[in-house]
Amino acid sequence: MPVGVLGASGYAGRELCALVQRHPRMSLAFATANEQRGKSAELPGGGAVTFVATDDAPLAEAALVFSSLPHGASKLWVERARGAGAKVVDLSHDLRIGNDTSGVPYGLTELRREQVRGADVVANPGCYPTSILLALLPLVEQGLIAPGAQVIANSASGVTGAGFSARTDLLFGEITENYRAYGIGNTHRHLNEMRAMMGEWHADADLIFTPHLLPIARGILSSITIPLTVDVADAMAPFRARYAGERFIELSDAPPELRHVNHRNVVRIHATMLQNVRTPTMLVLSAIDNLMKGAAGQAVQNANLMLGFEESAGLPV
Amino acid sequence: MPVGVLGASGYAGRELCALVQRHPRMSLAFATANEQRGKSAELPGGGAVTFVATDDAPLAEAALVFSSLPHGASKLWVERARGAGAKVVDLSHDLRIGNDTSGVPYGLTELRREQVRGADVVANPGCYPTSILLALLPLVEQGLIAPGAQVIANSASGVTGAGFSARTDLLFGEITENYRAYGIGNTHRHLNEMRAMMGEWHADADLIFTPHLLPIARGILSSITIPLTVDVADAMAPFRARYAGERFIELSDAPPELRHVNHRNVVRIHATMLQNVRTPTMLVLSAIDNLMKGAAGQAVQNANLMLGFEESAGLPV
Amino acid sequence: MPVGVLGASGYAGRELCALVQRHPRMSLAFATANEQRGKSAELPGGGAVTFVATDDAPLAEAALVFSSLPHGASKLWVERARGAGAKVVDLSHDLRIGNDTSGVPYGLTELRREQVRGADVVANPGCYPTSILLALLPLVEQGLIAPGAQVIANSASGVTGAGFSARTDLLFGEITENYRAYGIGNTHRHLNEMRAMMGEWHADADLIFTPHLLPIARGILSSITIPLTVDVADAMAPFRARYAGERFIELSDAPPELRHVNHRNVVRIHATMLQNVRTPTMLVLSAIDNLMKGAAGQAVQNANLMLGFEESAGLPV
Amino acid sequence: MPVGVLGASGYAGRELCALVQRHPRMSLAFATANEQRGKSAELPGGGAVTFVATDDAPLAEAALVFSSLPHGASKLWVERARGAGAKVVDLSHDLRIGNDTSGVPYGLTELRREQVRGADVVANPGCYPTSILLALLPLVEQGLIAPGAQVIANSASGVTGAGFSARTDLLFGEITENYRAYGIGNTHRHLNEMRAMMGEWHADADLIFTPHLLPIARGILSSITIPLTVDVADAMAPFRARYAGERFIELSDAPPELRHVNHRNVVRIHATMLQNVRTPTMLVLSAIDNLMKGAAGQAVQNANLMLGFEESAGLPV
Repeated sequence: MPVGVLGASGYAGRELCALVQRHPRMSLAFATANEQRGKSAELPGGGAVTFVATDDAPLAEAALVFSSLPHGASKLWVERARGAGAKVVDLSHDLRIGNDTSGVPYGLTELRREQVRGADVVANPGCYPTSILLALLPLVEQGLIAPGAQVIANSASGVTGAGFSARTDLLFGEITENYRAYGIGNTHRHLNEMRAMMGEWHADADLIFTPHLLPIARGILSSITIPLTVDVADAMAPFRARYAGERFIELSDAPPELRHVNHRNVVRIHATMLQNVRTPTMLVLSAIDNLMKGAAGQAVQNANLMLGFEESAGLPV
Repeated sequence: MPVGVLGASGYAGRELCALVQRHPRMSLAFATANEQRGKSAELPGGGAVTFVATDDAPLAEAALVFSSLPHGASKLWVERARGAGAKVVDLSHDLRIGNDTSGVPYGLTELRREQVRGADVVANPGCYPTSILLALLPLVEQGLIAPGAQVIANSASGVTGAGFSARTDLLFGEITENYRAYGIGNTHRHLNEMRAMMGEWHADADLIFTPHLLPIARGILSSITIPLTVDVADAMAPFRARYAGERFIELSDAPPELRHVNHRNVVRIHATMLQNVRTPTMLVLSAIDNLMKGAAGQAVQNANLMLGFEESAGLPV
Repeated sequence: MPVGVLGASGYAGRELCALVQRHPRMSLAFATANEQRGKSAELPGGGAVTFVATDDAPLAEAALVFSSLPHGASKLWVERARGAGAKVVDLSHDLRIGNDTSGVPYGLTELRREQVRGADVVANPGCYPTSILLALLPLVEQGLIAPGAQVIANSASGVTGAGFSARTDLLFGEITENYRAYGIGNTHRHLNEMRAMMGEWHADADLIFTPHLLPIARGILSSITIPLTVDVADAMAPFRARYAGERFIELSDAPPELRHVNHRNVVRIHATMLQNVRTPTMLVLSAIDNLMKGAAGQAVQNANLMLGFEESAGLPV
Repeated sequence: MPVGVLGASGYAGRELCALVQRHPRMSLAFATANEQRGKSAELPGGGAVTFVATDDAPLAEAALVFSSLPHGASKLWVERARGAGAKVVDLSHDLRIGNDTSGVPYGLTELRREQVRGADVVANPGCYPTSILLALLPLVEQGLIAPGAQVIANSASGVTGAGFSARTDLLFGEITENYRAYGIGNTHRHLNEMRAMMGEWHADADLIFTPHLLPIARGILSSITIPLTVDVADAMAPFRARYAGERFIELSDAPPELRHVNHRNVVRIHATMLQNVRTPTMLVLSAIDNLMKGAAGQAVQNANLMLGFEESAGLPV
């Protein structure tokens, strides 16, 4: 089935093209990139793609379109693709809960599977929210988070999360042997969608989120400290209960390492109760590949549902 | 003045040798390393050292001895060096508060300057405690930490913090493009000294500490979330008040980056009040070079005081 | 078809296990590792394996056995596996040309395809020889190398080429931000097999080989300078002629980058004639993943031929 | 003595500012950067600088001006600085031998010490030429290079050699875990000055130079293969003879590692005779920090001579 990729020259866009090219049920109808139009790029894992201008995208030829266009610019093209009859998975934050009121399903697949299955447009979650919300979901649903809790998420991401843009602060010479926080003060734009989900869940908690920039290409680890209502003897039990049978969620006995999730469409989660504290507190560690489960992989996972394919078709696990 | 280094072949030990060789008032009387005895090693920044067996160390020739011996083995050699008439700075955790009751001054220099000045033996703080305690000190002293608070410190360290030991989990191939938490569940051994200091400070707070391993050689960034009693209009004010005139403490308007503190004996601190929370909460970011202010640099800072030198003699700022 | 892996806990061994687990025609009968027996390891790209002691390997259950045992120890186990009726691909240098006179086919597949197809035992080439010999082969066969030439191969390899062993010189802290030559003076043990092949080819040339250690996990780039008999207008022509139809050889218009070959069983080659020289001289750049085409991938490529499968079965391109 | 830096916001420019700020005899009169004017930057090793526009540089206040302006733009400012009465060290290639016929001394200090001492303007050598020419000099002077030899220099450089410019091919995500050759075909612009020096030396040899890009911030290693007229029993002897007493040249018994020369104004050289060859051939390995001996450090070394200071003043060894 032919699919297209808008804004395909960035890291997530090229990952999407690679997944589509290897997908048993999809073929790549077009890949757009205005500045790179007419040029080719090699794809991760092999293969190559030639870009056309976004204005020249034959939208009507695609059964589904992925948009990796910049935030702000994406919304218009979602409408155009819909107008041409294509289903759309939008990877920008334009249509995500917390940023938009149109009610487009928020494609955190394990949370919204049935809504996604019937949708024509899906807003693909942000990379940080994917890693954090999937770590909180079982605890929220099982009423384990203490009222008024400060849920503190420290996340660290590889630099591809910042996109493929010519910025001097992302040069190799500035990142190697370095590490820093950014978006500090609880102001990162991904807070919108996470706070909106917390509100929808009626979770009586503050979410505090501090992202950091790692000297690696890809991967996000979120280390989340959560005050609980009760002591939980088996910290992994809530996760086993909620995620039984989920193919893209790995529950791990050991702290997850980024190298074990990179290039794979999974979230790996480990939870433990903290010692040496006066009130029950849990630490949840959640690891994803920001370009796979945090972007292109989850987008294909959603597209598989929207097109009636196996949810795992074409996805590396 | 002649000084010696026991256990000099590890990362902190070689850093100490390098600092001593460049120190305007110190000369290196000996450097010991049992397995490397008779061999030479290059030192960071240039120069070299030849090791003797620890048993062959001419302790009596040194006015002061640094011990970088392994935890457990160090205490005995501290006594031997004292018996030979040398002052001692012990970099192991053997004599640190929380691990020992002998009352040896805890050499967090900015906190214990006068005690250090008059001491014959000083227990040099751990690398993580240095980065965290110096970030908390002004808030504790000014009564700003909320009663019963959970103070949550997420730290990330370069791999030299794990020592120069032949472990497969520290191979380049296991660390590059990877990131993980360790010592999870609030169980890392550095908690002892931090909790003991919190107790001494009568700080009514839980300290929750989660360390992580970075794919870089050196540097520690601690990201600390702290519930406060009151809203603080100027988050940096408590730090400016406490640390005025301190040469090794840098207060920064921007989030500190490890590359700006590495190879320098400084702590760089940035504080900000969090938005989107219901109770006043501060984020403090604290960056050090784990081998300098977190080990060898602070050891020389303490030794300078013990020997009556300028506190900053021989220290890169 | 059941296959086994001897010496499976190293980098090449785990890569082999991962390839076998994903292979459409192979299943993993056993994986041995004496020190890790009873333990599990995660595999690159997902999945895991549990090791048994090498003495406990059920050799008779396997149609084919890969040996990644250490050089010197492997030969005995090749015999044992043969005695148990299994075919063998030996990844050590024990049976390679230049090190052994038993006449076991040297499994540089593109050179020895028909011999490999009929063989019971194949000696899998070294990683450096694979990158260099495939770059020289078309020039040798077409008589282009100048008589008495000094063929100068400078190679740079990622650290997994040095194996998964607890050596302090391979620690992350020793490799990051570093680069060095080793095995200098034209003495590296891989010279044996390359010089033996040159001799078999009657190539009247000296081969000078200097390996270097890169601060990356995987990949080898060989930069080879070759005096030619004649000026070649189109430097790529000899390669296109020799390698037409070869699935695992990529001829590239641009200098190859390691990231474009890593995790793939390919050699990527670019050739160009040098300017500003008085005699015709060619530069050939040859890139492989040392663990794939340089080890486990080529081993599976050979095994596929020996077992009558598609040569490319189970191999990422 | 007041000195200025033109084009100070790049890697070499900031290194120069740092060296000047720590120099016992120099003070920083101004540092220019048009795009960064009015802004501050942190310097390597500590300290900071605020930039002014190049047009606003108070050239007349400086006894000496370093120009790190881009190639092509630098020449004009060298003239302006001279017109204002300042001596100049130009780090661009505008005035270097092979690119210019004005006869400005080529500041390879160990080769041209006396010319530099009396000069008003010096052309600071390129980073690659510094590493290669200092490795060849003793062999040329002692007539050891075989007539008609192909001298083959393979060099690998850290990415700061490519400058501080917003290019997507220099992003961390493109460089990490990667390695590639560039400027291939013997066409790199540094060949001009190296070939010109070879000509001036009447060296009857072809120089073949292939640079590579390393995933590290700084450092250059050149691996140079050289056919000799005679077998040399002690490969280091020619270097010991020529470089006796040179403070910035380190002759090493082992292959040099970049970490041992980085942040230091030295060249480290190791030479060995090759085995398994039919004609005498030497391998010379030469390592420098591209920003120190390869740029800012050598510039200060030259400036020290021009201003009558100790040659080593302010330079880390």
